Amino acid sequence: MTQPFTVDLNCDMGESFGAYQLGNDAAILPYITSANIACGFHAGDPAVMRKTVRLALQHQVVIGAHPGLPDIMGFGRREIAVSSEEAFDMVVYQIGALGGFLAAEGGTLHHVKPHGALYNMAAVSAPLAEAIAEAVYRVNPELVLYGLAGSELTKSGTKLGLQVAHEVFADRTYQLDGTLTSRRLPNALLTTSEEAARQVVRMVKEGQVCAQQGTDVAIRADTICIHGDGAHALEFARHINQTLQNEGVSLQAFTKAAQ
Amino acid sequence: MTQPFTVDLNCDMGESFGAYQLGNDAAILPYITSANIACGFHAGDPAVMRKTVRLALQHQVVIGAHPGLPDIMGFGRREIAVSSEEAFDMVVYQIGALGGFLAAEGGTLHHVKPHGALYNMAAVSAPLAEAIAEAVYRVNPELVLYGLAGSELTKSGTKLGLQVAHEVFADRTYQLDGTLTSRRLPNALLTTSEEAARQVVRMVKEGQVCAQQGTDVAIRADTICIHGDGAHALEFARHINQTLQNEGVSLQAFTKAAQ
Amino acid sequence: MTQPFTVDLNCDMGESFGAYQLGNDAAILPYITSANIACGFHAGDPAVMRKTVRLALQHQVVIGAHPGLPDIMGFGRREIAVSSEEAFDMVVYQIGALGGFLAAEGGTLHHVKPHGALYNMAAVSAPLAEAIAEAVYRVNPELVLYGLAGSELTKSGTKLGLQVAHEVFADRTYQLDGTLTSRRLPNALLTTSEEAARQVVRMVKEGQVCAQQGTDVAIRADTICIHGDGAHALEFARHINQTLQNEGVSLQAFTKAAQ
Amino acid sequence: MTQPFTVDLNCDMGESFGAYQLGNDAAILPYITSANIACGFHAGDPAVMRKTVRLALQHQVVIGAHPGLPDIMGFGRREIAVSSEEAFDMVVYQIGALGGFLAAEGGTLHHVKPHGALYNMAAVSAPLAEAIAEAVYRVNPELVLYGLAGSELTKSGTKLGLQVAHEVFADRTYQLDGTLTSRRLPNALLTTSEEAARQVVRMVKEGQVCAQQGTDVAIRADTICIHGDGAHALEFARHINQTLQNEGVSLQAFTKAAQ
Repeated sequence: MTQPFTVDLNCDMGESFGAYQLGNDAAILPYITSANIACGFHAGDPAVMRKTVRLALQHQVVIGAHPGLPDIMGFGRREIAVSSEEAFDMVVYQIGALGGFLAAEGGTLHHVKPHGALYNMAAVSAPLAEAIAEAVYRVNPELVLYGLAGSELTKSGTKLGLQVAHEVFADRTYQLDGTLTSRRLPNALLTTSEEAARQVVRMVKEGQVCAQQGTDVAIRADTICIHGDGAHALEFARHINQTLQNEGVSLQAFTKAAQ
Repeated sequence: MTQPFTVDLNCDMGESFGAYQLGNDAAILPYITSANIACGFHAGDPAVMRKTVRLALQHQVVIGAHPGLPDIMGFGRREIAVSSEEAFDMVVYQIGALGGFLAAEGGTLHHVKPHGALYNMAAVSAPLAEAIAEAVYRVNPELVLYGLAGSELTKSGTKLGLQVAHEVFADRTYQLDGTLTSRRLPNALLTTSEEAARQVVRMVKEGQVCAQQGTDVAIRADTICIHGDGAHALEFARHINQTLQNEGVSLQAFTKAAQ
Repeated sequence: MTQPFTVDLNCDMGESFGAYQLGNDAAILPYITSANIACGFHAGDPAVMRKTVRLALQHQVVIGAHPGLPDIMGFGRREIAVSSEEAFDMVVYQIGALGGFLAAEGGTLHHVKPHGALYNMAAVSAPLAEAIAEAVYRVNPELVLYGLAGSELTKSGTKLGLQVAHEVFADRTYQLDGTLTSRRLPNALLTTSEEAARQVVRMVKEGQVCAQQGTDVAIRADTICIHGDGAHALEFARHINQTLQNEGVSLQAFTKAAQ
Repeated sequence: MTQPFTVDLNCDMGESFGAYQLGNDAAILPYITSANIACGFHAGDPAVMRKTVRLALQHQVVIGAHPGLPDIMGFGRREIAVSSEEAFDMVVYQIGALGGFLAAEGGTLHHVKPHGALYNMAAVSAPLAEAIAEAVYRVNPELVLYGLAGSELTKSGTKLGLQVAHEVFADRTYQLDGTLTSRRLPNALLTTSEEAARQVVRMVKEGQVCAQQGTDVAIRADTICIHGDGAHALEFARHINQTLQNEGVSLQAFTKAAQ
């Protein structure tokens, strides 16, 4: 009998910059199935990108572009009022740039996941979401688009005919409408890996998450975001990886077949 | 009888940035056969890159990446002591980024020509030249490498098996060893389009250029660089284009067959 | 009898960057009384800043810092969701940087006027306005703060005890609440210098502006913004300068005494 | 009897950037007497600068500007072929920017020490050294100029009438001509704090350093550079601080009187 449950574990990577080290990519790669690599706009530089692509290929993890807003000082976390056209252009640019390293290192680009404020803006703004999905599609219609589960971004991707991976967060709490609790509010984060693992298992196996208000809401979990920085990132990744496997969930990179 | 002489006319393009306009791309495109498009490190931004790619495709001019040093403030003209590895990485990045727009707009990348200080450094430094040629080759071995005629860069490209276009300058004067007269010296530039056209015709038809010292030196002219900015750029481009055609020289983008 | 009407004519300056030229500073300086000099975040670079400070000193025009958001690609016109603390810090930085050139060239900083999106955000957000006013005050409480007439920024400055210059725009149309018509709407701009001059004379002499809705609204006009770029900037500046003088309005840099 | 020996211990600080943390400023401040604060060109950002100024003031350590080349990706360590004029302008800009935070926080700027490649270039290029010294002088002739002991930079400063602090390195080895052993060579660094402390004590008390070739050379040690990053920075700082005090050397910020 085939294993009925499958999920992708993704992590943002390649976020160092010049002399500045961030994250713990090499240690986390064994526990994930897809890597989103920063493309130089909010983090990463050409040397970091090459090294991270190489590292991900060594670990046989699929590689995605992780385009962000042009704001290294703000790590791509500050909203910038870019036009849809500007968003289209900056996503094309960044996918292309990472693609250069995949060509040079002999790999293939698998997906695109916007970063930080661009991700959040694209989750709620239809025009921005359409521009980003269009950028992905125009560069390569075979690419998978990763976006917040049930968001404008996943809708736009689906409408265009892209493969779309609905993303959930292991350590974030949810609202009744399926959105994330704002980081500005208390209780935005689950603090223990046990809680996070429990939430993740339910999302994958039951398609449900218990909102902060205490009621279950339906959620689609194609891919789970693991955070790669912070003191407990590694232990966290390991725990979620193992719990899912113990629960009979197969971990593998998102593919259309898995949908 | 077939036309015996063929040459490529190339021009740097897409050097505007944000609110800043530079050059006269649309007006010059009818007179050239290949466009080198800035990739955002020394000039250009994602919006400018997309528009310039589109414009070049409309004019059926072949498109090259024009990677530069990371220095918009200095327009890529200040030497930066980058390592060979850094040069490799920044060239891969920039080729990839422009490649994104070619994919999105339905075109194909034809060549790579380094910009400014990177071009000059690669003309004389073998390790840097090798790193740049290697970057081009690793991204796509079918790409043509444009470099200063007879330089370390063209040597490195040839050694790797890349197609290489030896570039000459219409409006620059030459030294006995085939190098350009430094811009810091007087008489570095030919000031009239007549002189420039005469020099260009001789380089293409006779493979000779009269050095500043008054003696002819051998030179290989696969492609001629036309400058796209400055008050007289357009008149200059038009005059050189017409003179070459009047002299029976066929203008076409560089191809291996033409070598 | 003393001349009863006085106003300041200010213009944004020093917006070139590296190889990129913008504006027509030298030609416009004879027609204005205060210059707002870009500080390198949205435009300007150290060389441009020094030259512009020198030029303004030669024309005996008072000098202000024109701090913007860190976004040269967007010319500081795209809103960035900076925190109040970030706004405070970036304004302190930019005032200081321009102050370096005033010290080096033997001048004195007179005022601070935020640029573009930072100006617009500070006009409506009290926390941002307070942070910016506080930054100005902390660097030097003698500096004058220029802000949109009747905005949160002028309110915050007044509350802190700063000298505040209420700014009006010669070529923008107004709404009933005294705010500017959004540039996204038609009729946001007055297109002839005659119309602009008429509007300006009324604002200065009568303290009234006719809103787009056809009704007069009260407005305080301490300083008038002249745009320095665009095809007609120079003619525009000259016309407004002359009309005001013909109408008996004395042109001089804003001072507390003039309030 | 008065203590005959006095020296300044300086450390580069404020080299974090946005989300990127670097160094251990708070822990090292108790062991030094002067702090060189990065100004945003090679490291640091406005928020980091304000926090670092505040921290240094709390520790009653004198504050210097630490201007670098405009290259955050390269941490200011890659030589850029800037003109003397460009060097002048970028030093004025950065001193001014840091000065903004000193004004805002109620402190006084004490000195200027160029960073990285700019420091090294200014040590050997007289025109660059003169431009930098001139920049310091023009902003404020009371500022102290820190430069490599016996270099072109200290010469230029002295010639202009600036107070000049000759800087030595605790953990670097020296050549017969008093220059530092290149980091590209083996034995460029002393690896134990004991060796470093011994070298420092001799430089301060005897004005001698034993060159790598085994011969003593004369050296003037007004200020000692302590590195603030790296695994052992803190232990290193503490050890050198204590050894000097045990040897009867008084630690205090460089002043003219101390010369």
